[in-house]
Amino acid sequence: MPRVYNFSAGPAVLPEEVLTAAAEEMLDYNGSGMSVMEMSHRSKVYDDIIKEAEADLRKLMNIPENYKVLFLQGGASQQFAMIPMNLMKNKKAAYILTGEWSKKAYEEAKIYGDAISVASSADDNFSYIPDVSDLDIPTDADYLYICENNTIYGSKYNKLPNTKGHILVSDVSSCFLSEPVDVSKYGVIFGGVQKNIGPAGVVIVIIREDLVPDECLPGTPTMLKYKTHVKAESLYNTPPAYGIYICGKVFKWLLKKGGLTAMKEYNEKKAAVLYDYLDESKMFKGTVRKEDRSLMNVCFNTGSKELDDKFVKETKAIGLDNLKGYRTVGGMRASIYNAMPIAGVEKLVEFMREFEKNN
Amino acid sequence: MPRVYNFSAGPAVLPEEVLTAAAEEMLDYNGSGMSVMEMSHRSKVYDDIIKEAEADLRKLMNIPENYKVLFLQGGASQQFAMIPMNLMKNKKAAYILTGEWSKKAYEEAKIYGDAISVASSADDNFSYIPDVSDLDIPTDADYLYICENNTIYGSKYNKLPNTKGHILVSDVSSCFLSEPVDVSKYGVIFGGVQKNIGPAGVVIVIIREDLVPDECLPGTPTMLKYKTHVKAESLYNTPPAYGIYICGKVFKWLLKKGGLTAMKEYNEKKAAVLYDYLDESKMFKGTVRKEDRSLMNVCFNTGSKELDDKFVKETKAIGLDNLKGYRTVGGMRASIYNAMPIAGVEKLVEFMREFEKNN
Repeated sequence: MPRVYNFSAGPAVLPEEVLTAAAEEMLDYNGSGMSVMEMSHRSKVYDDIIKEAEADLRKLMNIPENYKVLFLQGGASQQFAMIPMNLMKNKKAAYILTGEWSKKAYEEAKIYGDAISVASSADDNFSYIPDVSDLDIPTDADYLYICENNTIYGSKYNKLPNTKGHILVSDVSSCFLSEPVDVSKYGVIFGGVQKNIGPAGVVIVIIREDLVPDECLPGTPTMLKYKTHVKAESLYNTPPAYGIYICGKVFKWLLKKGGLTAMKEYNEKKAAVLYDYLDESKMFKGTVRKEDRSLMNVCFNTGSKELDDKFVKETKAIGLDNLKGYRTVGGMRASIYNAMPIAGVEKLVEFMREFEKNN
Repeated sequence: MPRVYNFSAGPAVLPEEVLTAAAEEMLDYNGSGMSVMEMSHRSKVYDDIIKEAEADLRKLMNIPENYKVLFLQGGASQQFAMIPMNLMKNKKAAYILTGEWSKKAYEEAKIYGDAISVASSADDNFSYIPDVSDLDIPTDADYLYICENNTIYGSKYNKLPNTKGHILVSDVSSCFLSEPVDVSKYGVIFGGVQKNIGPAGVVIVIIREDLVPDECLPGTPTMLKYKTHVKAESLYNTPPAYGIYICGKVFKWLLKKGGLTAMKEYNEKKAAVLYDYLDESKMFKGTVRKEDRSLMNVCFNTGSKELDDKFVKETKAIGLDNLKGYRTVGGMRASIYNAMPIAGVEKLVEFMREFEKNN
C-alpha cells in the first residue's frame, strides 16, 4: 500500500526521509555493526547520537546556555506530577485551563498543593484562549502553567500570558518546533515528542538551570527529580535510546529545511489552505475563535453528525487517514504537523469541496 | 560493516530477523500506509499490536489469568519507587542485596518506609547468592524483594528464596524470558526490556491482580499507580508504542524457537561453552561462585588489568564487541542473551584459547 496522508493527532506523521534512513541503518548504524536499539547507552557511538541531538535542538530553538535539555520518559502526563514535585516550594501554583491536558495537569498538581485556576475557556467548550493580559496570580504562586497548543480543541496562544514576574511553565507537546520561540521567556518548556518530533516514549524538558531544585517535595522518587537527570545528562538510567535517535534525525531534517523560521512560514501557508477554505465554505465550519487557531490541529465540522461520519469514512477510503475529531469536540480534526506535506492538505481541501458540492 | 557479535549488557543484541522485519515495515506496517511510529495508540491497528504482544507474552510465560501485564515507561529504576509506593502498606519491606540494582531498589524504598536488608553478598563483592532458605523476614513486611539475575556481577538465584508467606517481588531485567518461570510464585515480576527483549524505554510489569492497590502512599503520582495502568490496559497515556511493537516481534521469535523451555536448553548449552572453558583455563577465571552463575552475564578476568585491557582491545578488533566488565568488577563480561548466537560464544572461546597460548 502507498503511504497515506496521516492526519493523526499523535503519534503522528514523521518525515519520510527520516524513516527511510532509519530503515537503512536498522542492522548497522554508521559502521558500528549493530542497530541503535542494540547499543549500550554508555558507548561512544551512542553518546555521539544523544549529544548531537541535544546540540541540534539547541541550535534549532536557540536555547540559551543557562537552560538544561533533558530527554526523559513517561510523557507529558508524568511531567504533570514532576512539575509540582520539583517547583512547588510554596505549595501554590496558577493554572490556565484551555483544554483536557491543562485540566489534567491542574488536577495532578492538586495532589501536591494549592493549584489555582486563574483563567479558563471551559465555558465555551475550550473554543478560545482566554484573555491572559491581566491575570489575578497569587504573589506567592511558584509558577504559572499553560498548555500552549491544545491538540484536542485546536487552539493556540498567539501571545504568551502576562506572568507578572512568575515562572512560566509550558506544555508544548503539539506545537514543539513548529515555529521559533523565545526560550528565555519560559522557566520550563516540555513536550512529548510523539506529535511533532519522533516516536512516543520520549519527553523533552527544557528547564532554566536555577530552577532545578536540590530538594523536591518529600517522597519524590529519584527518577522524578530533575536534578537526577541534569546531573547525569539524561543518562541516569537507560534512556529511550532509539526514540532519541529518531528525534535527532528529525532535528537534522528541520535544520536542513531552514530551521524554525522556515517551518513557521511553511506551517502558516499549509494551515491557510485549510482555514481559508473553512472560512468560505457553507458546509464546513472551524470550531475555534479565529485569532486563537492552531497551526497544528485544525478542528471543524459540518454541523451534522451523520455528514461528519460520512466524511471521515470517505476520506479514509482515499488515503486521508485519522480525520475523526476527539469525542469531546466531535466532527473532524486535521493534525497537520511539520512532517505533513502541503500536498496532503491540498488533497483534503479538494475533497472537501467535492464533498460539499455532492452533499 | 558486517554485524558484530555484540556482548553488551544492555541495550543488547536483538534477533537479526526481528530487525530485518522492522526495517522492511518501517514505511508501511501491514498495509496501513504508515510506520508503527506514526500510528495513533488508539487506532485499531495499534490495538492489535499491543494486544497480540500481551497474548504472546502470556503464552510464553504461561501467565495465570489473575495476573495483569503492563507495558510501562521509566525502566526498572522507576519501579524501584513504584513498588514501595504501591505495595508498602505497612511501611516495611525486606530486601536481599546481591548487587548494584538491588542496592538501588533498597535505597529508594527507604524514602517510603522501613526497608530492611535480610541478606547480602556485599562481603565478597557480590560474587555469590546468599543462603535464602531461612531468612529473618519481619512478619509485617509487605514484600520480599530480589534482583533475580545480577547483570553487573553475573550471578543468578538458582532457587527462589523461602518467602515464608510474604509476597515475592522480583526484578528480572537481565534474565527475562531466558528460561521458564512459575509466575504463580511471584507477586510482582518486572524488568526493563532492553537486555533480553527489545529496545530501551519499555518496562514490563506482571502483577497479581489482588496486589494492585486502590490507594497508594500519599503523594503518589497518577502515572506511578499500577491501578492507573491496569484500568487503562497500558494505554492511560501514549505508551512507548514502537518499543512494544519490537517486543511483540521478539515474543513471536521466541515462540517460533520453541518457547522458553527450548530457550533455556539453548542458553545452557551456550553458557556451557564459555563456563567449561573458564573452568579449564589457566589464565581466565570466572568471578562468580559456580552454583550461582548466570546464564546471561558471564564475568571473568585474567587477574592482570593489563592483560584484561589487551584482551578487550583485541576482541573488539575482530568483531567481538562490548566485552569490558563493569567498573566495580573489572575484567570482562560477556552478556549472552537469548539473541546471541552460539557461534558468537564459540568464536569468543576460540579467541580466548589463542590469547591464552600467546600471552
